[in-house]
Amino acid sequence: MQQEERQEWLGVTAPKGFWAGAAAAGIRDGKAERLDVAILYSEQPAVAAGMFTTNRVRSAAVEATEARIREQRRLQAVVVNSGNANACTGEQGTADVLAIQIQAADLFGLEPGDIGVASTGVIGVPLPMDRLSAGIEEAAKKIRDDGGRAFAEAILTTDTYTKEVVRELTVDGQTVRIGGAAKGSGMIHPNMATMLAFLTTDAEVESEALQEALRHAVDASFHCISVDGDTSTNDTVLLLANGMAGNRPLRPDHPDWDRFVEAVTEAAIHLAKAIARDGEGATRLIETRVEGASTDEEARRVAKAVIGSSLVKTAVYGADPNWGRILCAAGYAGSSFDPQNVDIYIGDIAVCRRGGAVPFDEEAARVVLRGDPVPLRVVIGEGSGKAVAWGCDLTERYIEINAHYRT
Amino acid sequence: MQQEERQEWLGVTAPKGFWAGAAAAGIRDGKAERLDVAILYSEQPAVAAGMFTTNRVRSAAVEATEARIREQRRLQAVVVNSGNANACTGEQGTADVLAIQIQAADLFGLEPGDIGVASTGVIGVPLPMDRLSAGIEEAAKKIRDDGGRAFAEAILTTDTYTKEVVRELTVDGQTVRIGGAAKGSGMIHPNMATMLAFLTTDAEVESEALQEALRHAVDASFHCISVDGDTSTNDTVLLLANGMAGNRPLRPDHPDWDRFVEAVTEAAIHLAKAIARDGEGATRLIETRVEGASTDEEARRVAKAVIGSSLVKTAVYGADPNWGRILCAAGYAGSSFDPQNVDIYIGDIAVCRRGGAVPFDEEAARVVLRGDPVPLRVVIGEGSGKAVAWGCDLTERYIEINAHYRT
Repeated sequence: MQQEERQEWLGVTAPKGFWAGAAAAGIRDGKAERLDVAILYSEQPAVAAGMFTTNRVRSAAVEATEARIREQRRLQAVVVNSGNANACTGEQGTADVLAIQIQAADLFGLEPGDIGVASTGVIGVPLPMDRLSAGIEEAAKKIRDDGGRAFAEAILTTDTYTKEVVRELTVDGQTVRIGGAAKGSGMIHPNMATMLAFLTTDAEVESEALQEALRHAVDASFHCISVDGDTSTNDTVLLLANGMAGNRPLRPDHPDWDRFVEAVTEAAIHLAKAIARDGEGATRLIETRVEGASTDEEARRVAKAVIGSSLVKTAVYGADPNWGRILCAAGYAGSSFDPQNVDIYIGDIAVCRRGGAVPFDEEAARVVLRGDPVPLRVVIGEGSGKAVAWGCDLTERYIEINAHYRT
Repeated sequence: MQQEERQEWLGVTAPKGFWAGAAAAGIRDGKAERLDVAILYSEQPAVAAGMFTTNRVRSAAVEATEARIREQRRLQAVVVNSGNANACTGEQGTADVLAIQIQAADLFGLEPGDIGVASTGVIGVPLPMDRLSAGIEEAAKKIRDDGGRAFAEAILTTDTYTKEVVRELTVDGQTVRIGGAAKGSGMIHPNMATMLAFLTTDAEVESEALQEALRHAVDASFHCISVDGDTSTNDTVLLLANGMAGNRPLRPDHPDWDRFVEAVTEAAIHLAKAIARDGEGATRLIETRVEGASTDEEARRVAKAVIGSSLVKTAVYGADPNWGRILCAAGYAGSSFDPQNVDIYIGDIAVCRRGGAVPFDEEAARVVLRGDPVPLRVVIGEGSGKAVAWGCDLTERYIEINAHYRT
């Protein structure tokens, strides 16, 4: 397996048979200044796996797409819009999703049930269906087998850059590719999935196995990031496998299964880290590694508490090696450990040993904290459980962005 | 029962027989510019109840004071310092707490076990025992029966004002008073108790009953506030009852029991709200009322999610009536309800009905959001469970304060 950096911009269209296109429809405010409608299309029907927000309040798009995947585990196209979440929009929201599916199905000669839908943006405002419909028509005309970058651009909201990934491996002597695109920014504290992420592969994968691969990948990636602790109403991760690589069907007893899952997981981690680094107002990525917990699950809980702590995030922003906040966050993570056995490192610099202060070079620690990413390490001394979680610093800019999001 | 506003500054010394004093010892940085050591003393031994942080990482003061209360349910004095949390300070921290107890016991002719200790401030730095010891000696000389304000001042860190309360009621024909002082500011997401709060009463109360009254009061007050989601290492709430009012011992079968518990709860709520309003960088108090949940517990979970949401907090700061964020936070609270039955109000203005948008006067809503407190109401439509939680807005100032706390 090797990363092909030069092809990263192909994103979701890197695997065989996946096409994408986008249009500027002015979804947010009527001004068609940026791409905000995107379509992902597969030449062949694709086995589909999905994970969705656990928020009780869910976008109509989440409800519909989850239902489709549960019923048939198969999709051939996905329509995505940014600028409007289609959440808290009642029966109108549900009807609008169906209208999107019908329109896209007509354009591609498919059934409405073959179309997944995802939305992101402001909550509680009905979709501007006239503009969206025009956008879908235009995006459908523009789909290309190298349209991944346009797709990745169109799904962004307050994100500051596109998030794409391409991975490649060999299965049964065939080259298999995994592509992906995601968006994040605010309201990012994924619980089952992140805001929006789309993964594609031309591997042939059995449907149960595909869902299992996605669950594994999401647990180690989107479930390990936080920007602001707010779990969105629209979190959606989709993984589509169209089988065009020509391998024998992948499933857990296939000799290449583990490598496939690993590649999907790596792709998901790549996107999740990009989301964390591009959190609203963030200036850098915080990577917290926890070792020596009693289990991986306990380690993950601690790692997530550390990257979720407002006080840790502001300390990183201020390049302040205030390790007490790291230990404090570990302490309230709900994991049971003896604080007297905890060591903490900022980069390679030990700043806390056995739960207490040690002399260290503060200026050197500040230099690490000013870098990007910022590596933090918490060694608990209970067992062999380990985990990594990713977050970002918390800055004045987050406040500015969110104090006036709608105005 | 009536509030006597003019006596609020008496705080912890309002009930009979409680004295307090404070000194400026330069605990934080050697500069004795502000009060930072405080002593609370009762003429008679007081029955003591306490609730403490559930953080795995706990201050040596928390460990010692909790142990004393568990063992004997009795204290006669409490020594408090700000500027240093004495957390993550290992065996030195434990030894320092004992030294404080011994010194204070000598000064007052008590046993070390009669002395409670509480600390707040920076984590991971040993207490400057020379300065602290001088401060304890000076504070002991200065204790007065109206020293509540000095006590309330000395326990502050980044708080911007003192937090005191006085309540009065009649029990068995005797006037009973409840006094209190608290500090909050940052690292406020109490789980068992808040940063530091001290309640006193001259009522005679049986020890089990006193702990029960405190638990009830804390659940409805300090457990219902959040500033930044970080549960401190030092959270401590103490309630001391010295019996000098001359009533028959209060316990659940006493006819005035409910009124006593209610008065203690009101006092605790008063302090908790003051902490929330004075959160680091906050400009106003957010009061979120949840009604119609299936149980009070479910209602509390929703109310706490709403006041804990960074996106709700920034929206209030920006006076943006973005109700979708309120509904989103309710949705991830872990409570089960049907979003289609949820109504949301900003002040008296309905901004969301049955989980969807309704037309409302945006400018009027902005006026409410610019007021203090900011009343939010979420009506769930499941049952009769209700709760209130208090938080504050999130501003650039929070970032400034915490990006450079130690520097």
